[in-house]
Amino acid sequence: MPPCTVNIKHMLMSTSSSPATALITQVISAWQLQNRRVNNIINKLTAEEFYQETAPGRNSGIYLLGHLIAVNDTMLPLLGLGERLYPELDEPFVHRPDRSGQQFPAPEILKGYWQHLNDILTMHFTTLTPDQWLTKHNAISEADFADHPQRNKLNVLLGRIVHQAYHSGQLTFLL
Amino acid sequence: MPPCTVNIKHMLMSTSSSPATALITQVISAWQLQNRRVNNIINKLTAEEFYQETAPGRNSGIYLLGHLIAVNDTMLPLLGLGERLYPELDEPFVHRPDRSGQQFPAPEILKGYWQHLNDILTMHFTTLTPDQWLTKHNAISEADFADHPQRNKLNVLLGRIVHQAYHSGQLTFLL
Repeated sequence: MPPCTVNIKHMLMSTSSSPATALITQVISAWQLQNRRVNNIINKLTAEEFYQETAPGRNSGIYLLGHLIAVNDTMLPLLGLGERLYPELDEPFVHRPDRSGQQFPAPEILKGYWQHLNDILTMHFTTLTPDQWLTKHNAISEADFADHPQRNKLNVLLGRIVHQAYHSGQLTFLL
Repeated sequence: MPPCTVNIKHMLMSTSSSPATALITQVISAWQLQNRRVNNIINKLTAEEFYQETAPGRNSGIYLLGHLIAVNDTMLPLLGLGERLYPELDEPFVHRPDRSGQQFPAPEILKGYWQHLNDILTMHFTTLTPDQWLTKHNAISEADFADHPQRNKLNVLLGRIVHQAYHSGQLTFLL
């Protein structure tokens, strides 16, 4: 399956496009750019490099990749887009720290998960309207959302973009 | 001068707020959050730690802080908001690599620049309308912008948010 892409230029130049649509399209584009940046790093790593620490005593490449998949995967239920694809990754990559005796899937397996998950997410993202992006995510109550309207779906996406960039800065130390 | 902040809740709950305004307000909020995260790291670093490498052979803390200031500073002319505040930082922190014999301002000086610059930027950001965020930035020609409408002011801000997150992931290795 080819990577799912959004034709940003087409969407931004569409005469029916509102400013809000253009803005959200651009945030989705930023998300896709971060995905490509992670791809650019992990596609250059040897199997051996995946298991190296990004800095002395810090997380390994394989741990960070699994962690990014697990955290992105939570967007499916958080944004009401469906069930998680890889909930089994929470235990080794979120609940447990690196090098605590857990088994990791092979790098090639994780790279496949990463690509598939991001294709699915991108496909869903393009179906949400600007107003839907401003509705609450599924980890906050109606009452709390009334007090914190910024805790909406867009906030989740912005948070994930930043989270990927943060760990990309660390993964690049493996190159 | 106290830090310049945007009252996100007020802006999002305002009955006159359009979806586009709410979306852009949230991106500015993400920018402010990244600023606070960098602050949280640099405020914990000792003077000695600022000069340590984030990983063996990698950029030091002082270099990354100067680099972030210089790159954020370019937003002033890029977004048509004014002249740069600290163009003298380009030479030591952008054009030259770390440890190439240049002199650095002291950490406390750079921390002051960082805070002042981000206050000025945030103040300007809140004056731009959604439509203005979708206009071209000043490093692209009208002709190129017609072909690449995503190269607008919002794209510059999203890029800077990601850039800060990327280097924050590295700076945190100094803690």
